[in-house]
Amino acid sequence: MDYETPQFFRVMKYASEADRDVVDMVSGSPDWEPPEALREGLHTYADATPGEFQYQASVGLPELREEIAARRGVERSQVIITNGTGEANHLAMTEGYRTMPGEEILLVDPVYPYYAGRASIIGADASYVPVDETGHLDPDTVAEYAGAETSVIVINSPNNPLGVTYDADTIRAVVEIAEENDAVLLSDEVYDHFDYADRFASVLSVDSPNRIVTNAYSKSMAITGWRVGYAVFPHPDGPNGELMERARTRHMLTNVTGSRPAQTAVLHALRNTGPEYYEATRELLTDRIEAITAALDGVGAEYTEPEGAFYVMARFPDYPGTFDNVERLIDEAGVAGMPGEAFGQSRAEWIRFALVTPRVETAAERLEAFFHE
Amino acid sequence: MDYETPQFFRVMKYASEADRDVVDMVSGSPDWEPPEALREGLHTYADATPGEFQYQASVGLPELREEIAARRGVERSQVIITNGTGEANHLAMTEGYRTMPGEEILLVDPVYPYYAGRASIIGADASYVPVDETGHLDPDTVAEYAGAETSVIVINSPNNPLGVTYDADTIRAVVEIAEENDAVLLSDEVYDHFDYADRFASVLSVDSPNRIVTNAYSKSMAITGWRVGYAVFPHPDGPNGELMERARTRHMLTNVTGSRPAQTAVLHALRNTGPEYYEATRELLTDRIEAITAALDGVGAEYTEPEGAFYVMARFPDYPGTFDNVERLIDEAGVAGMPGEAFGQSRAEWIRFALVTPRVETAAERLEAFFHE
Repeated sequence: MDYETPQFFRVMKYASEADRDVVDMVSGSPDWEPPEALREGLHTYADATPGEFQYQASVGLPELREEIAARRGVERSQVIITNGTGEANHLAMTEGYRTMPGEEILLVDPVYPYYAGRASIIGADASYVPVDETGHLDPDTVAEYAGAETSVIVINSPNNPLGVTYDADTIRAVVEIAEENDAVLLSDEVYDHFDYADRFASVLSVDSPNRIVTNAYSKSMAITGWRVGYAVFPHPDGPNGELMERARTRHMLTNVTGSRPAQTAVLHALRNTGPEYYEATRELLTDRIEAITAALDGVGAEYTEPEGAFYVMARFPDYPGTFDNVERLIDEAGVAGMPGEAFGQSRAEWIRFALVTPRVETAAERLEAFFHE
Repeated sequence: MDYETPQFFRVMKYASEADRDVVDMVSGSPDWEPPEALREGLHTYADATPGEFQYQASVGLPELREEIAARRGVERSQVIITNGTGEANHLAMTEGYRTMPGEEILLVDPVYPYYAGRASIIGADASYVPVDETGHLDPDTVAEYAGAETSVIVINSPNNPLGVTYDADTIRAVVEIAEENDAVLLSDEVYDHFDYADRFASVLSVDSPNRIVTNAYSKSMAITGWRVGYAVFPHPDGPNGELMERARTRHMLTNVTGSRPAQTAVLHALRNTGPEYYEATRELLTDRIEAITAALDGVGAEYTEPEGAFYVMARFPDYPGTFDNVERLIDEAGVAGMPGEAFGQSRAEWIRFALVTPRVETAAERLEAFFHE
């Protein structure tokens, strides 16, 4: 698998060029409304003084850093605002690899392809910890794979592509494994607002100088194209404090700083959006999960129970999730998913469906019709 | 000099904490109005559909790429939209260094510190070509310094910090030097709209597979904090075509994509802003240049004649441009500039003043009073 060029665009292109109506369940871009305060914040910024259009601090808008630090219970000096979770993960993986003694980055299979691509351009060895049959991470398996060679362990809960959420015991155990092996645990928590099983535990709940947490407003505010994310590093004055200093330098020399219109509007939305916005999104997605899983049950497909995020990964009888079969599903059923093989070995026979279309019910009906034939 | 942490923020902080009124001429952030159409474009975007808030193509908004390609006379496949000129230079330097055979990056002294910092984190050897006494680049000197070990030559015209502009003959000669040494010429042209001597020549005027041109709307539209820039690479299907492919991959794995609100508003502004906007900015800056150079003449300072950009670099009699002397100028004269030593060896005795404040005349008066005493 060539992880350096993630394959999402290939499948989206095929679906958009198909000679029929297709329900697109490929990408992870929300289809729902952002918070109303986000639009307000951008309107207000559009009328700001010229001074507010210039460079902010390299690490991000001071008030937004402060707001994030207060909400996450960390110090402002631990927070760097990034160009989405993408850049946050890039900084954390690169500087984790350069700073910690090992030469290996430990990923989970199935893997979000960008993690694997990053490990590759960094020049790190990537190893893959398989999940258990239910799609969860068994800390004993992580402990088997981790060792002195491990520099960074990357986890993602709620998980893309599986839709599982790791519980607090797992999180605590994996932090300990990172500590024992002089590695850092990088926890990408971008789906933290999409927790249907009340199971999500942030790595920030475990105090440790071996943790880095990344996040963004891309999914929670339905703005994947705005690129406002952040990383929380170990305190710069404590153990592993050089991680933050090095990430700051790399961020400055790569991007100088992030885009201020987006950061300013996100700050306004953070301050003026209540829990009911996030609750309504979860309700919408719960309905979609019910529709798709009912269809999957109906055709005898195996699937991972969705506890978080907004993906369902399924295996259909005698229909492995290859690129060819995914293209056939587009042409013959009018439903586009992502081939399991794009996410590694362990779920190569599966297909991932992103529940970010108002037509999940249509897709469910089409899948039932196609697989019943 | 530790180029990994550019020193602009240090001086700005000192100036802002001074116990008196200070005219800030440290940073390169414009103080004038952006194009009216930029504000309009952002208002329109704030009311867009949720779909327009999601991931665009990794290489940037298709219509903006198209617009840039048409304006620059290149093909769309050569253009990548970046998080400001900063990321464009980062991609070009990193992939130029990785792709071309040499191990050295050739910079000009005095140097814009971010170039030097980037060479350092890439792990390249940096060499510095001195400018001549007038601040210009002599191609014969570049030829002396370049060799088989050179992978990337970085130039910046109109130039920060000197304010000089290289003529067409220089540009052509430096492209040839890059070709002869199997290197790429990276030309940062972010000040192209600030050309007072009608002397500016883009490297795009010289057809070559050894050129990379970077630019942004940060200065021309007075939006340094928005982060919309671009790079023009050699055609992906021609010689050195792998530079573009590698830059695309690095951009995708670093940032995923740029911030869409900013790119969308810039596209609207590009399409709806006439030459009179840029002309008015040049007139404003010409007046400021006259005010400051008259004062410098008055106190017998030596300075580089400003032909482009918006900086004046000057040497005062018996007052070298160290950090200490710059801080004394803040405290005693109420004028903040950037120490020459922040830009390398050859102008270490000089001080750079950025003409991005409406109070240039006040600064001129204060400098005259201080140095006459």
